[in-house]
Amino acid sequence: MLKKILIANRGEIAVRIVRACSEMGIRSVAIYTEPDRYALHVKRADESYSLGEDPLEGYLDPVRLVNLAVETGCDAIHPGYGFLSENARFARLCEQNGIIFIGPKASVIEKMGDKTAARDSMREAGVPITPGSDGNLADINEALTVAEDIGYPIMIKATSGGGGRGIRRCDTPAELKQQFPRVISEATKAFGSAEVFMEKCIVNPRHIEVQVLADSHGNVVHLYERDCSIQRRNQKLIEIAPSPQLTPEQRNYIGGLAVKATEAVGYENAGTVEFLLTGNQVYFMEMNTRIQVEHTITEQITGIDIVREQLRIAAGETLRYRQEDIHYRGFALQFRINAEDPKNDFLPSFGRITHYYAPGGPGVRVDTAIYTGYEIPPYFDSMCLKLVVWALDWEDAVDRGRRALDDMRLHGIKTTASYYQQILKHPDFRAGKFDTSFVAAHPELLTYSDKRHPTALALVLATAIAAHAGW
Amino acid sequence: MLKKILIANRGEIAVRIVRACSEMGIRSVAIYTEPDRYALHVKRADESYSLGEDPLEGYLDPVRLVNLAVETGCDAIHPGYGFLSENARFARLCEQNGIIFIGPKASVIEKMGDKTAARDSMREAGVPITPGSDGNLADINEALTVAEDIGYPIMIKATSGGGGRGIRRCDTPAELKQQFPRVISEATKAFGSAEVFMEKCIVNPRHIEVQVLADSHGNVVHLYERDCSIQRRNQKLIEIAPSPQLTPEQRNYIGGLAVKATEAVGYENAGTVEFLLTGNQVYFMEMNTRIQVEHTITEQITGIDIVREQLRIAAGETLRYRQEDIHYRGFALQFRINAEDPKNDFLPSFGRITHYYAPGGPGVRVDTAIYTGYEIPPYFDSMCLKLVVWALDWEDAVDRGRRALDDMRLHGIKTTASYYQQILKHPDFRAGKFDTSFVAAHPELLTYSDKRHPTALALVLATAIAAHAGW
Repeated sequence: MLKKILIANRGEIAVRIVRACSEMGIRSVAIYTEPDRYALHVKRADESYSLGEDPLEGYLDPVRLVNLAVETGCDAIHPGYGFLSENARFARLCEQNGIIFIGPKASVIEKMGDKTAARDSMREAGVPITPGSDGNLADINEALTVAEDIGYPIMIKATSGGGGRGIRRCDTPAELKQQFPRVISEATKAFGSAEVFMEKCIVNPRHIEVQVLADSHGNVVHLYERDCSIQRRNQKLIEIAPSPQLTPEQRNYIGGLAVKATEAVGYENAGTVEFLLTGNQVYFMEMNTRIQVEHTITEQITGIDIVREQLRIAAGETLRYRQEDIHYRGFALQFRINAEDPKNDFLPSFGRITHYYAPGGPGVRVDTAIYTGYEIPPYFDSMCLKLVVWALDWEDAVDRGRRALDDMRLHGIKTTASYYQQILKHPDFRAGKFDTSFVAAHPELLTYSDKRHPTALALVLATAIAAHAGW
Repeated sequence: MLKKILIANRGEIAVRIVRACSEMGIRSVAIYTEPDRYALHVKRADESYSLGEDPLEGYLDPVRLVNLAVETGCDAIHPGYGFLSENARFARLCEQNGIIFIGPKASVIEKMGDKTAARDSMREAGVPITPGSDGNLADINEALTVAEDIGYPIMIKATSGGGGRGIRRCDTPAELKQQFPRVISEATKAFGSAEVFMEKCIVNPRHIEVQVLADSHGNVVHLYERDCSIQRRNQKLIEIAPSPQLTPEQRNYIGGLAVKATEAVGYENAGTVEFLLTGNQVYFMEMNTRIQVEHTITEQITGIDIVREQLRIAAGETLRYRQEDIHYRGFALQFRINAEDPKNDFLPSFGRITHYYAPGGPGVRVDTAIYTGYEIPPYFDSMCLKLVVWALDWEDAVDRGRRALDDMRLHGIKTTASYYQQILKHPDFRAGKFDTSFVAAHPELLTYSDKRHPTALALVLATAIAAHAGW
């Protein structure tokens, strides 16, 4: 088994990895830049190292991180999500320096990061892909021809993009002419590559993704799907496992496709194959070659600790589960509590947490790095807490979500929590009927009152005063 | 369904019941005495009422509580555990005032509270009981005769006792002569009844108890067993579900006995049938006619919310689960975090919580009513937090327990948390091999160092200072 791991990340996912290490008796090494000096992942890890004043540079410097891993005697690096997690150069640098990169081989990251190469691999493996361009688009003329062929609306996508960025929808040739240079410009800036391709736009699909585990001995299993259709501008807000809108036959079919996709590219470690569903049609969208934010809900329904499995796979162990050993039970929902003001176009709301109290009791899981007095730095992701609920039945799980959101105290910043309460009350959501258009189709859910818990807040203040007065 | 419930309790179990009410859309009414004015159950309930200055009186006054329920328009009372939860008079008073008592009928509480009547019922139903006196003991002469007959060691027990109190072990006739009047005196003082009976002392048994659910239509199911062998002076410390030391055959046999016992006495609502195991021998010990502290671990392995089921049963609903619908998965452990100093003979350690941070992440559940700044009053139970962990495999669950105990921050008072870390490290515990003698047999586990997390503590202080300086 691994002995010591450098965690090349911060925030809740770094805490999550520290916990897995702690349970397995593996020593954990945290890194931090100046704004994260008092961050929870630093407090919880066995060792921690400063990467200097700049908030971001240290987290994004492959050479420095690999050197630090070597110097501190680590045998592996866990990249988490975001930052360098899908950076093939980082994975290769690890390989070259005798450090195990906890993820797939650099060549596989490269292949799946190149969206047109990924489409090619899937086509060959017999995994259905959306109609679109045969590789990258040479110019606007080719784009117009392909669009005419597959039919509008279409999407122009950055070949090196991901995470919902570098994507534009076009409904007419005029729009395509206008957007084409913009996507190229955006792709160049955001991903360092001007390559773009085209896909038919699947209107109001459901976003269904499948968690897979693959060991280095050729064994691949899937851990069933997550429904991530509750999105705002391609950013996931609430994730659900399993999808309340799949039949068992659809579930097994999509799980099988994900395994086929994983095997086709020689994938190793945990990964996610994302699909779009419309009616009974399933299309491969992309593969994320890392742990995902929403891996938690799959852990809740299958009981399998995905991060621990990542470490076991990285250590060369054989998967402990065959497909027939993996069962799902109940329903889990994850709420991404973001430091944003939903009523002000989801403007980030960074600042000091004046009071935080974790929700608890049955069927509640919290993954966070915040605490009372913690100041959320403005340099990073606005997600500050993942609230996960579970219950045997779908409606009980929704009710538990409502209760747990209500149970949580998080003062000092604006968050998306109250907005999620509105979503949970909507009859379509409760009925398990929604697609990726849900959030945009229901702007009325943003007109809620902020006046929750006036009595409770007064009591908190009274208690705080009493505590200070030594009363 | 019920509309409004008075919760005749305090602390974590009152919070637990508020949560169930909240999920089911039932209004909750909290009660409190002066020391509980700022207690969490008061903050979380929809309404709350003061019962005056005396710390205990209000919680123990059946007439006042039933009147309050009537006055506030409640249709039911949940008694929690302890206090009036097994008080037949309280249950009868509810029945007489049109308030639903969330528990069995008063007559059943009476029968199971009378330990010799309970033994009689079990004998008739064919549930094995320990050899002992045929009913209550008339005098010391009868006691000596019965003891000679069944063989020493024997136990003298208060007929109206429970919760591990009013019990003495005697190894010789001389000891019996000495202890007999003492138990009578203790029983009179603690339970208001001088009746005592005798049971053969099962030496170093395992304590195995079975959770049952029974509706008002005659349906009874069991939710498998809990192993509560890790006790100190008959007080449970760590509970485990399912028992790592039962075969599936033993599990089904004991579950079946519990159902038989439940049916035999016309039981309704959630209850627990406690057994002693020695080798392959199983003996009925007692039935607890209320929710138990350790119901949490059964919820973790079965996925069934026992408190919600209690409310459904009380409302007259038919059980939603047949025995064949109830499955257990993985292993759950509950650690009772008590405000006690294990190194000082578990002396209570009440006082102000200067810093509390809940453990989190996968497979961790917390039930508590404490918060930073909360002062634990000296009038009640010393248990201040229930930490529950779950994992698919036994060893993973033990490792998770170690990690979660380490993850938790609870400063300002002494607790049993560090002592539990020592138990988790013991090879016999890790091997799942222990009986009720474990704690007494391992006094060396009390010699641990208290110096955990010196760096972490320093950082917490630094952050607190930074927060106060507005830095």
